Amino acid sequence: MRISELSRRSGVPTATIKYYLREGLLPPGRATAATQAEYDETHLRRLRLVRALIGVRGLSVSATKEVLGAVAAHAGERHQVLGLVLGARPVDEDAEPAPGAPEVDALIGELGWQVSEHAPARAVLGETLETLRSLDEEVSHAALLGYAALAERTAALDLDQLDPQADPVDQAESALLRTVLLEPALLALRRLAQENESARRNT
Amino acid sequence: MRISELSRRSGVPTATIKYYLREGLLPPGRATAATQAEYDETHLRRLRLVRALIGVRGLSVSATKEVLGAVAAHAGERHQVLGLVLGARPVDEDAEPAPGAPEVDALIGELGWQVSEHAPARAVLGETLETLRSLDEEVSHAALLGYAALAERTAALDLDQLDPQADPVDQAESALLRTVLLEPALLALRRLAQENESARRNT
Repeated sequence: MRISELSRRSGVPTATIKYYLREGLLPPGRATAATQAEYDETHLRRLRLVRALIGVRGLSVSATKEVLGAVAAHAGERHQVLGLVLGARPVDEDAEPAPGAPEVDALIGELGWQVSEHAPARAVLGETLETLRSLDEEVSHAALLGYAALAERTAALDLDQLDPQADPVDQAESALLRTVLLEPALLALRRLAQENESARRNT
Repeated sequence: MRISELSRRSGVPTATIKYYLREGLLPPGRATAATQAEYDETHLRRLRLVRALIGVRGLSVSATKEVLGAVAAHAGERHQVLGLVLGARPVDEDAEPAPGAPEVDALIGELGWQVSEHAPARAVLGETLETLRSLDEEVSHAALLGYAALAERTAALDLDQLDPQADPVDQAESALLRTVLLEPALLALRRLAQENESARRNT
């Protein structure tokens, strides 16, 4: 397809596609004339992944480029690709791990979870627990284990919905969109369920 | 206690406390001289709730005043107070319900949840599902029921942690803080659990 059709099908303006081509976020098309190139489904798919990384995960163009390079290097390895795209692991595995919370490290150890030392969610969890503690709203260890067990079941449900026939890059794109975009829905369900549970306990 | 001690114990500047007094967000203290008043623990508690409603839920001063008026009218009714403070129900029960999503109404009906027609989370849920659909990432009805069941268990765990001896207003303050402040921790746990689940399925 021409760049105009790639633009139409992806919803990304032609000028933006040209910018991504110059920056190397999209591989060049097959040249059909001095100023024309043909693009195919792989370009469309890559373009959607780029848009998701920039628009949904908020990555910069250069960070997106690094993630895509790392995805390409592990294209056949489903877990690697998922981990890279979901931001659970950084591009540079030799980088210093984020400053962790000992409490979170201990929890993950106790749960037996296989999670990169670099996962940004470790720090988010630690900071949130610290904030609650500073407001005299400590979350007990038992409650934390309860929330973790529910998170395990949520994650299993998330992954169950991925198409096992899809190629790893498509699957990663889908996982990325669902991870981030489902968040408000899961929080809304919790608030609705709280109201219901509160009503139920008072009747 | 004097206003200076109320300020020290709450962390709220004296000028702000005076503003809340003028606006009627805090009841006046007991006058001890022409320009002096004594405050007690009920003022401190009310002040913390005001700060949570403004700072955590992002309400305006006038909306906070309305919520507090409604809380006072239902002070002995635990569920009413919780519902008011968590924002699940608006102050004016006669107001038009928020434009709902028929899909969300049907889901709540199927689950048998007792949830106000006014709950803002209904619209959030509907919009999020619509966004996912527009990106070809439809959440199946079965998956939605699965997430709702996990939300029920999360809400039960949330409410289990409230001190049953606390008075309804304190309990509502605690519930408000935990509802909002735990959100990043729950999302972080889901991301960590996804990485673990992805690793587990590939070994």
